[in-house]
Amino acid sequence: MKEVTVGIDIGGTNSVLGIVEKNGNILAENKILTTDYPVINDFVLALHRCIQETVSGIENISIKAIGIGAPNGNYYNGTIEYAPNLAWKGIVPLCEMFKEYYKEPVVLTNDANAAAMGEMIYGGARGMNNFIMITLGTGLGSGIVVNGEVLYGSTGFAGEIGHTIVDPNGRDCGCGRKGCLENYASATGICRTFLELLGIRRDKSDLRTIGFEDLTSIMITREAEKGDKVALEAFDITAKWLSLALVNSVAFSSPEAFFLFGGLANAGEYIFKPVQKYFDQNVQRIFKDTVKILPSEIKESNAAVLGASALAWNELAN
Amino acid sequence: MKEVTVGIDIGGTNSVLGIVEKNGNILAENKILTTDYPVINDFVLALHRCIQETVSGIENISIKAIGIGAPNGNYYNGTIEYAPNLAWKGIVPLCEMFKEYYKEPVVLTNDANAAAMGEMIYGGARGMNNFIMITLGTGLGSGIVVNGEVLYGSTGFAGEIGHTIVDPNGRDCGCGRKGCLENYASATGICRTFLELLGIRRDKSDLRTIGFEDLTSIMITREAEKGDKVALEAFDITAKWLSLALVNSVAFSSPEAFFLFGGLANAGEYIFKPVQKYFDQNVQRIFKDTVKILPSEIKESNAAVLGASALAWNELAN
Repeated sequence: MKEVTVGIDIGGTNSVLGIVEKNGNILAENKILTTDYPVINDFVLALHRCIQETVSGIENISIKAIGIGAPNGNYYNGTIEYAPNLAWKGIVPLCEMFKEYYKEPVVLTNDANAAAMGEMIYGGARGMNNFIMITLGTGLGSGIVVNGEVLYGSTGFAGEIGHTIVDPNGRDCGCGRKGCLENYASATGICRTFLELLGIRRDKSDLRTIGFEDLTSIMITREAEKGDKVALEAFDITAKWLSLALVNSVAFSSPEAFFLFGGLANAGEYIFKPVQKYFDQNVQRIFKDTVKILPSEIKESNAAVLGASALAWNELAN
Repeated sequence: MKEVTVGIDIGGTNSVLGIVEKNGNILAENKILTTDYPVINDFVLALHRCIQETVSGIENISIKAIGIGAPNGNYYNGTIEYAPNLAWKGIVPLCEMFKEYYKEPVVLTNDANAAAMGEMIYGGARGMNNFIMITLGTGLGSGIVVNGEVLYGSTGFAGEIGHTIVDPNGRDCGCGRKGCLENYASATGICRTFLELLGIRRDKSDLRTIGFEDLTSIMITREAEKGDKVALEAFDITAKWLSLALVNSVAFSSPEAFFLFGGLANAGEYIFKPVQKYFDQNVQRIFKDTVKILPSEIKESNAAVLGASALAWNELAN
């Protein structure tokens, strides 16, 4: 009998699930369209059926636990709370609903915490007790691991480095406040910086004809590769903001490493090199050479499912 | 036989020790002059003799452990590392040196972590698993408690909120960098702000004749009580900076409370009222009404010894 966990990643568009062995081997994957189920009970039933269908195709396995990564997921309560990009409003008691179908443990957290779990169990953070996962997508997510455990705090919502305020008079944030880090250091953040720079500088750029809605961080990376000065400066400024957040996070929890993951992290040296440079310049002396800044070792295509599955394995270990 | 711990607070001028029962009752206190012992071995011997002398005056007690609070104290290594205000240079293996005289556990941490321990074991944080201690003295110290344990991180030096950078182009900091929080939110910080405001505003103030070296946060509090507009604005600006750090700390570790301690916290409503106002304005929605901002419940005169003693009791409990 092979022991497996089910890792589920709930996204605004798709919800993906994987049947995962303890070594991270994904035996099967499947998905449903999140948007097909505006009523939460229908969604849970559809996901349950999808799990059953997927499992029935594999011989000799035994599900030990289910892990779920979801936006605004609360580990303590097993709930999704006021997720702006999902159809279900208010507080959704997702774990409780799942437990009607499964007697095994069902656990839930947000995407970035799940990513941190994935890194800790299957990735570059194996053996580390103190590290921070930074996901650089549309926003900036973070999962903080302290003494080998994800930091949830008193509410279950700890680890929101993307919503630390770096400029109180700065850019409007989706959270209703101003100057949160994710408006500077994220795929969206670098696009906003790039546009600002086009207004400031007179340099030519192939992207001067692209509207803001169509601009992506990948386009800016391609331009940087061509030597576009504005694109290179946009990376430099983005790196400066990100390194400030890393330096301040070190003062807070003194991790042994940061792992960068997601769209913007894929820009490789264009982001890692200046981040490391500014980090070294600005980190407090007592922490010098105590922290690594590393790319995630988890493949992006598997990360969400592996993270959720790792959450489930971790629950079984505790 | 009464069980006691010895709590030792090493300061730049005095080193104070107390013989403390588990309920926080201090049976006796004593002190030596730190500055009398430029050689560390002499200091340890003198402190040992002082402990013996103090203990000999009390009947029927048994020392179970020794806790030490010291600037730049490292819990993991039991060392004082590069403390700028102490005569002993480099890395001092203080716990090891003490263990030549005592077979009981000897533990050491920095002052702010010891204060957090004191609050957790004897003060307002009893029963709390997630809180942050902020000491507002010459600088800003912090002790972060997560899941009932002080956060030490991978190096033992975590919890340096006073050295998070809040303005990268800001005021010179003693650490060699610019814009660290403690240059704004501390007894020294409010003096710097007050002086800046005297330059900006034309209002009369009784403190216009006082030189910077002679100015204290207590003078500014006294002026605020008299309705001095510059003093009141200095408190307002200080509170704004401090509340920004609290808001960002909530995003990081989601504590259930902050405890403010030390000189500036003694200004009472002049600091607590605007801090609470700006905190409520700026905290992220998901954390609204989840965090209290409270004065420390430990008397300032006992805090250092009680904190160090609490560290010792905590070690015995683990």
